[in-house]
Amino acid sequence: MTPETSAPSSPPTPGEVDCLVVGAGPVGLYQVFQLGLQELSCAVVDALPFLGGQCAELYPDKPIHDLPGLLACSGAELVGRLVRQLEPFKPRCVLGQEIVALAAEPDGRWRLGDAAGRVWLARSVVLAAGVGAFAPRRLKLAGIEALEGRQVWHREPRAGDSIGAVPWVHGGDDRALDAVTALVDLGAPVVHLLYRREVYPASAARVARLEGLIAEGRVVRHVGQPESLLLDDAGRLVGIAWMAADGSAPAAPASSLHVSLGLNPRLGPLADWDLGLARKQVPVDPATFETRLPGIHAVGDVCSYPGKLKLIVSGFHEATLAAHAIAHRLRPDAPRILEYTTSSARLQRILGVDATHAARDTP
Amino acid sequence: MTPETSAPSSPPTPGEVDCLVVGAGPVGLYQVFQLGLQELSCAVVDALPFLGGQCAELYPDKPIHDLPGLLACSGAELVGRLVRQLEPFKPRCVLGQEIVALAAEPDGRWRLGDAAGRVWLARSVVLAAGVGAFAPRRLKLAGIEALEGRQVWHREPRAGDSIGAVPWVHGGDDRALDAVTALVDLGAPVVHLLYRREVYPASAARVARLEGLIAEGRVVRHVGQPESLLLDDAGRLVGIAWMAADGSAPAAPASSLHVSLGLNPRLGPLADWDLGLARKQVPVDPATFETRLPGIHAVGDVCSYPGKLKLIVSGFHEATLAAHAIAHRLRPDAPRILEYTTSSARLQRILGVDATHAARDTP
Ligand SMILES: Cc1cc2nc3c(=O)[nH]c(=O)nc-3n(C[C@H](O)[C@H](O)[C@H](O)COP(=O)(O)OP(=O)(O)OC[C@H]3O[C@@H](n4cnc5c(N)ncnc54)[C@H](O)[C@@H]3O)c2cc1C
Ligand SMILES: Cc1cc2nc3c(=O)[nH]c(=O)nc-3n(C[C@H](O)[C@H](O)[C@H](O)COP(=O)(O)OP(=O)(O)OC[C@H]3O[C@@H](n4cnc5c(N)ncnc54)[C@H](O)[C@@H]3O)c2cc1C
Repeated sequence: MTPETSAPSSPPTPGEVDCLVVGAGPVGLYQVFQLGLQELSCAVVDALPFLGGQCAELYPDKPIHDLPGLLACSGAELVGRLVRQLEPFKPRCVLGQEIVALAAEPDGRWRLGDAAGRVWLARSVVLAAGVGAFAPRRLKLAGIEALEGRQVWHREPRAGDSIGAVPWVHGGDDRALDAVTALVDLGAPVVHLLYRREVYPASAARVARLEGLIAEGRVVRHVGQPESLLLDDAGRLVGIAWMAADGSAPAAPASSLHVSLGLNPRLGPLADWDLGLARKQVPVDPATFETRLPGIHAVGDVCSYPGKLKLIVSGFHEATLAAHAIAHRLRPDAPRILEYTTSSARLQRILGVDATHAARDTP
Repeated sequence: MTPETSAPSSPPTPGEVDCLVVGAGPVGLYQVFQLGLQELSCAVVDALPFLGGQCAELYPDKPIHDLPGLLACSGAELVGRLVRQLEPFKPRCVLGQEIVALAAEPDGRWRLGDAAGRVWLARSVVLAAGVGAFAPRRLKLAGIEALEGRQVWHREPRAGDSIGAVPWVHGGDDRALDAVTALVDLGAPVVHLLYRREVYPASAARVARLEGLIAEGRVVRHVGQPESLLLDDAGRLVGIAWMAADGSAPAAPASSLHVSLGLNPRLGPLADWDLGLARKQVPVDPATFETRLPGIHAVGDVCSYPGKLKLIVSGFHEATLAAHAIAHRLRPDAPRILEYTTSSARLQRILGVDATHAARDTP
């Protein structure tokens, strides 16, 4: 699967599918696999620039121990395994696209779109939106919005950012320390790092690299909480003031600021659709995982029903039943027979696996 | 886990557990794991002499393709993986024990027992009985029951069986051909093999071995369907008569008979318990997987609820919710918090996994 990453400037690429899967976390990925077994065309979109949802975003290196048959499988490994498993179906996969709009079409299909106006037309929809689309946690300071994209960014530094002579980074996690290195690599003579604690919640390797840069005089570290942005008469950022641990309130010149405070999930748009959301979850019928909107299903952390547990193992079951229900709804006259991947020639054909084993045990 | 195999002659070994899991198929095995995470004591029993239910019995070598994250995993491999995963909990596991009786105790517990009178006392029960306990398909001929265990067996030959000078095997699958070899190894001068077809539904290697034994004159093959057992005045087996393909009805001397016609699942005893069985499945509440008897749950192929599919992936979810419901029922005052194996120190301690990773990402 080759994910398409759609820059907000790219032209609308409408897509027509049997099923659009919103969210490419572990459950959305397995949903694509199960829809493939049902021979339904589908696409998956995610607001994040990568696959895997919480597993990839929050704990890529930590081992999960309760996945059936997988003794210790890191978040990243699980995502890799699920992506390989759905490969035979070659679904369209668009990253960096947050679905914000949902509307019913006269022909019974659903029209979904992002903020840039790009549109999907789908006969059915599976919301596998987890705890929401992850968005950077924003630094709240007076006047900061006006500087966003000019001297302040809530993303990693890129070539072309006008970082100036005194760039700052605010944050202390892996991404924040990576931003410091990126600024050094982009040619900043000295980078300032501001974080509220002296200890960084980052990997040992990154902290060691930071210490090295500090020793070389390429990085200056400050401990404290940003208090205000200092602006000149033209409204340009010229300095930062912060509250230090000892209660003092120092300030220093700044030509730009990259903020890296982690990501926050935002259920956002789903709340505006008529899904009967309760406690940030969408109620579903546990026989079909359909929401109260016909043809719109919800699986994984985002759905709720009596007994629901926000566990991956449950999401896999939910995606399976949803795929069967969708296939039944879209092909009401097809016989409902349960086929096994171990023994069905049809499933083995579409999976592209060798079926020579299958004949042996037939009496 | 070291399974105890209990010969029917062994003395009663009553066991007291928080939960007895009836059935060690894939779902019963994962059930043990999930009960372990809840720190409930449990034991698992199975009528079969080995672990793994249908996966081990019906398709140990065939790859399953729809287990999440496991691209192609044979039935035997899945069982091995599940057994390794539950190892930290060291549950008691008794094989070759069919539970036939269920009764309520005055103290709210359940008393379960097998035909030999061995008893379990359990605060809760999970029926993971699949499509039933597998039992050998029996040959139905007049007078055969009286010979069982003396000159006729529905199991593999063992040293000590009084096979006599003219042993017969009836059947044509892998196990039947293995029985032929076993009888040769036990010292039979010639073994007779009777099967209804000329082609054996057995592996190529076994068929080749059989052809070799026939060429050496150690095995004589007959094609036909057994019609009657010939008995002497003392009621001893002395011959077999069968119906041949050409319509003739030959007979020949026989000193013993090993029957190998495959296994049949028998839901058997469950049908007698007041579970409201419908179409060989036990209705459950899909929030807790509790049956209509309090404290008795059912998961996997044996349970039914709206939308139920007899798939392993669903059984894993069912076992998870059942374990949580059981823990809640047995410890009603404990707080209901969902803990993750990736991050919970308690779970990592009981799993015996290194928790050094866990601290890293804490901000
Ligand atoms: C630290 C931690 C440890 C955990 N450990 C375990 C464990 O050991 N075992 C276990 O079973 N579970 C564990 N979990 C829970 C597990 O990660 C979740 O149950 C799982 O990720 C849910 O998968 P999902 O696919 O439903 O949602 P998510 O993984 O949340 O993925 C949802 C995706 O949808 C996207 N999205 C949302 N809205 C939109 C939109 N409008 N447009 C486009 N994209 C959108 C999001 O960007 C996201 O990528 C853990 C969770 C955490 C945080
Ligand atoms: C050929 C074939 C291919 C399959 N392929 C797939 C596939 O690709 N994907 C998939 O998801 N599923 C597949 N399945 C289905 C899958 O095997 C079942 O869903 C799964 O085995 C159910 O597991 P279980 O633990 O509920 O029951 P089972 O595997 O049936 O195990 C139940 C166990 O309970 C024991 N038992 C029953 N009653 C008693 C009693 N009273 N006392 C003691 N023990 C008892 C039995 O002996 C048995 O060992 C396939 C099935 C078959 C036959």
